Amino acid sequence: MFILDEYLNKDCIAIGNFPLCQLLLKNDKKYPWFILVPRRNDTIEVFDLLPDEQHQMWAEVTTFSEILKADFKADKINIGTLGNIISQLHIHVIARRKDDATWPASVWDKLPAEPYEQNEIEAIKAHLQKIMPVTFSFK
Amino acid sequence: MFILDEYLNKDCIAIGNFPLCQLLLKNDKKYPWFILVPRRNDTIEVFDLLPDEQHQMWAEVTTFSEILKADFKADKINIGTLGNIISQLHIHVIARRKDDATWPASVWDKLPAEPYEQNEIEAIKAHLQKIMPVTFSFK
Repeated sequence: MFILDEYLNKDCIAIGNFPLCQLLLKNDKKYPWFILVPRRNDTIEVFDLLPDEQHQMWAEVTTFSEILKADFKADKINIGTLGNIISQLHIHVIARRKDDATWPASVWDKLPAEPYEQNEIEAIKAHLQKIMPVTFSFK
Repeated sequence: MFILDEYLNKDCIAIGNFPLCQLLLKNDKKYPWFILVPRRNDTIEVFDLLPDEQHQMWAEVTTFSEILKADFKADKINIGTLGNIISQLHIHVIARRKDDATWPASVWDKLPAEPYEQNEIEAIKAHLQKIMPVTFSFK
């Protein structure tokens, strides 16, 4: 059974699952900031995944990036996997806008998170219900 | 003919080419910090590449990540593609160490670059000559 890192679990809202990755919404309303986590325990670097899993993970990241860019009015998608603090492999996919809090700098190590209100989370989930591919399952 | 962005050209040292991506060394000796640039003009987001090109790019990033982790004494590989300032698609691959200048924070928007001396660049190139796969061509 896949076990999500406790800090990812605490800082994010679970949205659902791609065939390989769990999709999380980071609880920081400054940006549409999502995190994809391959459901494989004991995985730290991308190359810890099997080649087919790497391919699947990047395909899911790219599919989701394209959706984010189109539907969340992004000027640029930022993708990153750092893992210096949380070692479980996770990929940030962030819709950046030229008027967001830290543009054109990165999102990391900048401002404290601004948690969503519950109704804002529900609105994002409802929007995602309309636009996610059929291979994605909400839970 | 592929044209490298002028700022990438100015801030980096060209090392050679994977089948798809040009490999650059960022001229900042605080970290072993490399950048892979798919040799495709007018490409901004990952999904601007054809699916086969995306697959090839990530395969090159992963191959290189594994080499970096093993041969540059890294504690963690950081991978990121932001493009908020330089729009030409480019992927950062950075060997992070627990004693480096900004660990565990990200490398972006932190400290000014510390350029290499020429002999240090030559030493890195000589080391890479020994460890890069046969699909990589130095120029």
